[in-house]
Amino acid sequence: MLFHVRMDVAVPPDLDPEVRADLLAREKARALELQRAGTWVHLWRVVGHYSNVSVFEVPDGTALHDLLWSLPLFPYMTIEVTALTAHPSALSENP
Amino acid sequence: MLFHVRMDVAVPPDLDPEVRADLLAREKARALELQRAGTWVHLWRVVGHYSNVSVFEVPDGTALHDLLWSLPLFPYMTIEVTALTAHPSALSENP
Amino acid sequence: MLFHVRMDVAVPPDLDPEVRADLLAREKARALELQRAGTWVHLWRVVGHYSNVSVFEVPDGTALHDLLWSLPLFPYMTIEVTALTAHPSALSENP
Amino acid sequence: MLFHVRMDVAVPPDLDPEVRADLLAREKARALELQRAGTWVHLWRVVGHYSNVSVFEVPDGTALHDLLWSLPLFPYMTIEVTALTAHPSALSENP
Amino acid sequence: MLFHVRMDVAVPPDLDPEVRADLLAREKARALELQRAGTWVHLWRVVGHYSNVSVFEVPDGTALHDLLWSLPLFPYMTIEVTALTAHPSALSENP
Amino acid sequence: MLFHVRMDVAVPPDLDPEVRADLLAREKARALELQRAGTWVHLWRVVGHYSNVSVFEVPDGTALHDLLWSLPLFPYMTIEVTALTAHPSALSENP
Amino acid sequence: MLFHVRMDVAVPPDLDPEVRADLLAREKARALELQRAGTWVHLWRVVGHYSNVSVFEVPDGTALHDLLWSLPLFPYMTIEVTALTAHPSALSENP
Amino acid sequence: MLFHVRMDVAVPPDLDPEVRADLLAREKARALELQRAGTWVHLWRVVGHYSNVSVFEVPDGTALHDLLWSLPLFPYMTIEVTALTAHPSALSENP
Amino acid sequence: MLFHVRMDVAVPPDLDPEVRADLLAREKARALELQRAGTWVHLWRVVGHYSNVSVFEVPDGTALHDLLWSLPLFPYMTIEVTALTAHPSALSENP
Amino acid sequence: MLFHVRMDVAVPPDLDPEVRADLLAREKARALELQRAGTWVHLWRVVGHYSNVSVFEVPDGTALHDLLWSLPLFPYMTIEVTALTAHPSALSENP
Repeated sequence: MLFHVRMDVAVPPDLDPEVRADLLAREKARALELQRAGTWVHLWRVVGHYSNVSVFEVPDGTALHDLLWSLPLFPYMTIEVTALTAHPSALSENP
Repeated sequence: MLFHVRMDVAVPPDLDPEVRADLLAREKARALELQRAGTWVHLWRVVGHYSNVSVFEVPDGTALHDLLWSLPLFPYMTIEVTALTAHPSALSENP
Repeated sequence: MLFHVRMDVAVPPDLDPEVRADLLAREKARALELQRAGTWVHLWRVVGHYSNVSVFEVPDGTALHDLLWSLPLFPYMTIEVTALTAHPSALSENP
Repeated sequence: MLFHVRMDVAVPPDLDPEVRADLLAREKARALELQRAGTWVHLWRVVGHYSNVSVFEVPDGTALHDLLWSLPLFPYMTIEVTALTAHPSALSENP
Repeated sequence: MLFHVRMDVAVPPDLDPEVRADLLAREKARALELQRAGTWVHLWRVVGHYSNVSVFEVPDGTALHDLLWSLPLFPYMTIEVTALTAHPSALSENP
Repeated sequence: MLFHVRMDVAVPPDLDPEVRADLLAREKARALELQRAGTWVHLWRVVGHYSNVSVFEVPDGTALHDLLWSLPLFPYMTIEVTALTAHPSALSENP
Repeated sequence: MLFHVRMDVAVPPDLDPEVRADLLAREKARALELQRAGTWVHLWRVVGHYSNVSVFEVPDGTALHDLLWSLPLFPYMTIEVTALTAHPSALSENP
Repeated sequence: MLFHVRMDVAVPPDLDPEVRADLLAREKARALELQRAGTWVHLWRVVGHYSNVSVFEVPDGTALHDLLWSLPLFPYMTIEVTALTAHPSALSENP
Repeated sequence: MLFHVRMDVAVPPDLDPEVRADLLAREKARALELQRAGTWVHLWRVVGHYSNVSVFEVPDGTALHDLLWSLPLFPYMTIEVTALTAHPSALSENP
Repeated sequence: MLFHVRMDVAVPPDLDPEVRADLLAREKARALELQRAGTWVHLWRVVGHYSNVSVFEVPDGTALHDLLWSLPLFPYMTIEVTALTAHPSALSENP
């Protein structure tokens, strides 16, 4: 099923630069891995914010939670989760 | 450029049923037309709400405004617009 | 999967009493039917409010949306949907 | 009587790891104990959040307060308490 | 147990004056009855508002809900319920 | 006159334990003193929160301000003040 | 004592023009009367709003409530009441 | 012209006591100076808060900004600015 | 001086079409007149909303209030007013 | 296209004064450079706040994001982005 997720990142400015760089590198690697696996379907940056808007395709809420919880940046993010479904006016529903 | 748009619909319950049916039919036709044109890129229903989350690919804000303003349901919708850009961890940016 | 849903009901005070009675009777019949089917797992009244807190067990978000959208009181409710998963400290996870 | 409780946890990221591990172990032990005693009736994780949604069955508000106040994570939680009662459309009320 | 309740009243200005007068008379009679019974322990007016702040002493949440739900003004009130318990610094706890 | 006051306490978790203990002891002593004087008329704990709901009987707003400002916990509290008056449906107004 | 009051006025646009004119005339007469009596100490218009910011000098909260409740526009106003006291840096306190 | 300003002060509790005392002394001296000059027309304390409600008479917004920006406590205040004008029901407008 | 103003328009959908057309024509004529006079300095549409963001150059708050209050759409608008001043990093301040 | 941006600055009070001075100097230099380039079209200070209201003319959202993200003060700002378009009543649209 599909979930819409907004993540707002707030890494403390005084975090050790090496720790920070490692954190961001691991986050990016994980995001790419999940995109290649077809789980992290969309990933956009919100203009003017250290935030993203994403869409995930997962078996259920448990899979989404495990995925989000294990993101390297999870402790530094505020996350908003919204369940999605097909829209009756979407092309996919009106072939 | 890309815009993320959430639309919450509130058609008055006492609207004439024919007017309502016509409104919804025209909205659906327009949504399909804009999706086929590649402008209305994504259209999802929010679970439990008379709402959608959409992504539009338009030349600029003016094009998006003209599009939204001319939707048949525009007078009955609360709309939230968020500008998007490519995310540095998106697959498309890391080929 | 599990969803937590809060529904706040606002039936207009000037609704025709017969229409209202029919609406409530159909809502109750549907709620009982869904509880007997094991889909509407929990249903509580919020003290002092015309509201309920519920838990649904459904295959996915689409199933929940179809269920909520078809409730007789849907046009008169404000609905808040929250995805749930098993808690690592829950008894079921620590047999 | 029944209370619906949402707990949002915010353990400071720089808490000593041993202190943190001890805190979490004691919280989990207490949660299991209260579930086995039939007091902490439901405990779910909110998808994407370090939060839970719970239902407690207690004699009264005083019992709930003493229980929550003595949780090891209490100083690190934002808590929202909502009193519940039986819903007239619940199966239990319509045998 | 004790509950703190705030009620904000919004009777529509165009309600029939006789209906309104009857409503208010019945609300007042019921409020006096419940105060005499020792259930509605405190009842204050909020300065500058058509609102009250009250404290109720009831067996449990169910009793409070039944009481509030049956108030003549219930359909016209926004109600906020807060569970109370004895404060460790209250005189009653420090005789 | 009467004031309704809600106080939400947030003592920093890393405050020196002795300082904290002294602060709480002085706060409690002051609260008892003001209750015995008939100024702090009601003092309840809010279930699940480090908060109280209180009612004060004071000559005027200045007296209330001086009282609150001099509470030992004042620097650690968020305070909400609401002026009260007699309710026309209160027993005291309908002897 | 002093109270700071903000009043936001929302007279329904479809109110009978004569009723409206009468309402406004009586409100103005009452406001002038209370200013002349020294009770309504300050009365300013908020730029861009059908609102005022006022300061009242009254014996207590009861007097303020009776005054506000009896204003002709009271049923059409949202009112916010804030108790004031002398500021230690005010000229009046530092003669 | 007139501006209504609310200032909420939040001096960090761990600020060096001498720095704090100096800050407050300079703030008070400046407030008195501006009151004597007829610029800071009203200054009241909000009951129960480390806050004030003020009215300033200044040539324009630039003058108000320069004044507020240069207050010793400016870095520790949250400020809300509201433009005022004469009220048509004020005594001054109805001589 | 400069004021930043956001206006959100909500003309009732059931307003008589002729009344509505007249209202909009008069609003547009007035907006053009004030722009030509150099008072309404900037006027932009907010994408996706029946709203504008404007900047006004007026002698003071009174002039702005009189201007806004007399706009034909004033009774149908929610207005937010923010006072502006020159920014120290603006080109005009750094010739 | 045009974007309306509000930036609220919160530089920590305990930042090293030299770091702070350097940060502000670089921010100012960059703001002037972007204004000279015609990208940062308007820049105003909000009265009473460490904030600005700005209008940017950029090719698209991506250009705005890159610009904002690279501002020296970006890590210390809360930013609100609103897409603008020409208003049908603007002079430029009614030559």
